[in-house]
Amino acid sequence: MEERNYEGLFLLIKAGNFIGLRTELAEMNEVDIAEFLEELEPDVLVRVFRVLPKDISADVFSYLETETQEWIVRSITDTEVFRLVDDLYLDDVVDFLEEVPANVVSRVLRNTDPHTRKLINTYLNYPEDSAGSIMTNEMIVLKDSYTVAHAIEHIRQNGEDMATIYTAYVTDPSRRLRGTIDLAELLFNNPDDLIKDIMDDDAQLIYVHTLDDQEEVAEVVKKYDLLSVPVVDKENRLVGIVTIDDVVDIIQEEATEDMEKMAAIMPSDKPYLKTGIFETYKKRMPWLLILMVSATFTGAIITSYESALAAYVVLTAYIPMLMDTGGNAGSQASESIIRGLSLGDVAFSDIIRVIWKEIRVAALCGMTLAAANFAKLMLLDRIPVSIAAIVCMTLVLVVCIAKFIGCTLPMLADKLKLDPAVMASPLITTIVDAISLFTYFRLATSLLHIAT
Amino acid sequence: MEERNYEGLFLLIKAGNFIGLRTELAEMNEVDIAEFLEELEPDVLVRVFRVLPKDISADVFSYLETETQEWIVRSITDTEVFRLVDDLYLDDVVDFLEEVPANVVSRVLRNTDPHTRKLINTYLNYPEDSAGSIMTNEMIVLKDSYTVAHAIEHIRQNGEDMATIYTAYVTDPSRRLRGTIDLAELLFNNPDDLIKDIMDDDAQLIYVHTLDDQEEVAEVVKKYDLLSVPVVDKENRLVGIVTIDDVVDIIQEEATEDMEKMAAIMPSDKPYLKTGIFETYKKRMPWLLILMVSATFTGAIITSYESALAAYVVLTAYIPMLMDTGGNAGSQASESIIRGLSLGDVAFSDIIRVIWKEIRVAALCGMTLAAANFAKLMLLDRIPVSIAAIVCMTLVLVVCIAKFIGCTLPMLADKLKLDPAVMASPLITTIVDAISLFTYFRLATSLLHIAT
Repeated sequence: MEERNYEGLFLLIKAGNFIGLRTELAEMNEVDIAEFLEELEPDVLVRVFRVLPKDISADVFSYLETETQEWIVRSITDTEVFRLVDDLYLDDVVDFLEEVPANVVSRVLRNTDPHTRKLINTYLNYPEDSAGSIMTNEMIVLKDSYTVAHAIEHIRQNGEDMATIYTAYVTDPSRRLRGTIDLAELLFNNPDDLIKDIMDDDAQLIYVHTLDDQEEVAEVVKKYDLLSVPVVDKENRLVGIVTIDDVVDIIQEEATEDMEKMAAIMPSDKPYLKTGIFETYKKRMPWLLILMVSATFTGAIITSYESALAAYVVLTAYIPMLMDTGGNAGSQASESIIRGLSLGDVAFSDIIRVIWKEIRVAALCGMTLAAANFAKLMLLDRIPVSIAAIVCMTLVLVVCIAKFIGCTLPMLADKLKLDPAVMASPLITTIVDAISLFTYFRLATSLLHIAT
Repeated sequence: MEERNYEGLFLLIKAGNFIGLRTELAEMNEVDIAEFLEELEPDVLVRVFRVLPKDISADVFSYLETETQEWIVRSITDTEVFRLVDDLYLDDVVDFLEEVPANVVSRVLRNTDPHTRKLINTYLNYPEDSAGSIMTNEMIVLKDSYTVAHAIEHIRQNGEDMATIYTAYVTDPSRRLRGTIDLAELLFNNPDDLIKDIMDDDAQLIYVHTLDDQEEVAEVVKKYDLLSVPVVDKENRLVGIVTIDDVVDIIQEEATEDMEKMAAIMPSDKPYLKTGIFETYKKRMPWLLILMVSATFTGAIITSYESALAAYVVLTAYIPMLMDTGGNAGSQASESIIRGLSLGDVAFSDIIRVIWKEIRVAALCGMTLAAANFAKLMLLDRIPVSIAAIVCMTLVLVVCIAKFIGCTLPMLADKLKLDPAVMASPLITTIVDAISLFTYFRLATSLLHIAT
């Protein structure tokens, strides 16, 4: 699809023609309106937001960046805040409140009806990234004694303010979740059929708990190809739903987090350019420092073999190549395992199969690299065969050790309920570096008969 | 949600009670049945697949791994193949045929009605990972002259075999896409209203082209929170749709691919444990070799400063720390930019802002690390102040250079229409290593007045 062009809208603003602007905006998709608003100066933005037709302004608001949302809430009247919160889906209100300063939160809560305020407070109290903190309560709830015709009429009457009408939830008198039914099923069945006879229940019933992590929510929705998943509390009472659009965001967020951890960055949930210098600094510094300190062990190994190095300075020339290759081989194995664990392709019970596979791959890779390297050392560097042999033997060992560590550490972390992504390349590189150098010098000193 | 337990089903198989098994399976979710089938021995699997109620067997088939699907197709009769293909959604048939050997493809095509065969061949000819290759043609198509009541009746009559009924597509007599309408809108509007008056058209119409990449398809669906997106050909004729469940898979696949590239692995689309040793070897070997060769340049730098090293062997001890820290600092910057580019948070036009931000973050990180390191060198290592100063100055420079290279290379790659993810940590580490060592030795030789 082509990029949208907002030229005409800018001209209307310049001409001060806000009535014409309103007509144009009413014809547009809410996502595009939000994109357009983000390009405006703060003052103009609030003016344009105010001329939006009432039935779409809440939708547009939900697609804006948090900073823009905050600016709007600070600029509009209490009455406008009340209406906005009333029109927004509850999960969007909670998302917003989780990000803004306390004085904005209390202003919003002050301008909310007591029932909604109570619900918002409950949601805000669920742990971060739990199903409870991301769910919404705008869902279709049916009784199992309804007929299909009654259910469809119920959806027609109550559906407009719901986050989705495509799956309805069936509860008993004490609000316990008993079944789910898709709107498609309702349309394809006889109007006189009873919901209890056609709904998905028992073995087919799929749901999550309020305290389940959002990653688990995403996994269930993805596995069963759902459009929304019900959330129940400890007593199995239906308290909300999470819809597919939020699940798509979660999947993307979790992948970003894993990539950040793999690159030794502490996860952040803000886009790159919206994150301040000091915030970025704080997210990157801890791992840089930890890894620098651990790299000094590698230095200590070199120091302890100083005499070997002084006798054969040529050995130093191959340190970077051995360290880099070991690091790369380890990263490859750890990436494969970390991603496999997070997608559910690999589990701790597979550890023997995984290690056996990695060892064989490592042997193949190591020997190929050693062969290529030996040719290069003999033909280009023209170093003594003994040194070349030591370098190449080290290479094979280093690749094997690196792949072994690269695959076992993330699995052990997972077993210990730590995050496997933290065991990713930078940490593994540091460990592999130390082991590579130690192997290299041990081999060199014993084969070249150097006293250490 | 709790894990499903298939104990009872295994017992029924052991007892040879396939009628009882069929009754149990009929009550289960298709995804769970597929999961259960994957745990069976090949022979038993086909027997169980055959007892599945006809209305769910195609659905179950679509959730199986390709290898299992292939095994089933090879084991069943031509008539059964015909019925299976007829019951499957077209995109699932195409997905399957893209993965299996030619003799399986031709057997399936032989047992397909001519119209479907023609369509399948068209889809197979679209470029890999294009919208055309992943779409399906099972969608609700309406005329804009229909009333709401007529449209709902049409969906009731024709909806059962469709990939989704929640969005319907409106075309003109020459099949050009004119608008879309959600089932929710149909339910909330007056039965006598005309589709043309209530559908999303013109500025609101969202679609993709057959040749668009699947990543673009996913982006559009995600941006506009769609449940399905229409695919049009060059003449703007509606040829298919892509549904949200496929988009979720694409998003996950693309994230995995990026992670693999960042870890110097060539992308593969098979789960880790399903990939053979040689396949894994082939995916990992190329980058290991390329990076090993480039690391030899780093070795060459060391060789050219051999005399400096011979005079001050202590310098060697800090090589690993400098190289590792440079590599880590570079990875952090490159990960942030690569992910930002892929999520659309960062564009090439931001390059100046990005560099300016990275330089400031690098200065902060570099100075913090240098301070920590200087204290350690003086208090623990007790090396001469001059050497400590050289190490710490190099550290600051290395972090700055690493962050600069880490942020600019992916952006340049993106500008040159290369994949930024390939410019990730391993490549950047190699480049940064060479530059770090060069800086280190330049500083050391000039400040310590060593002749090289």
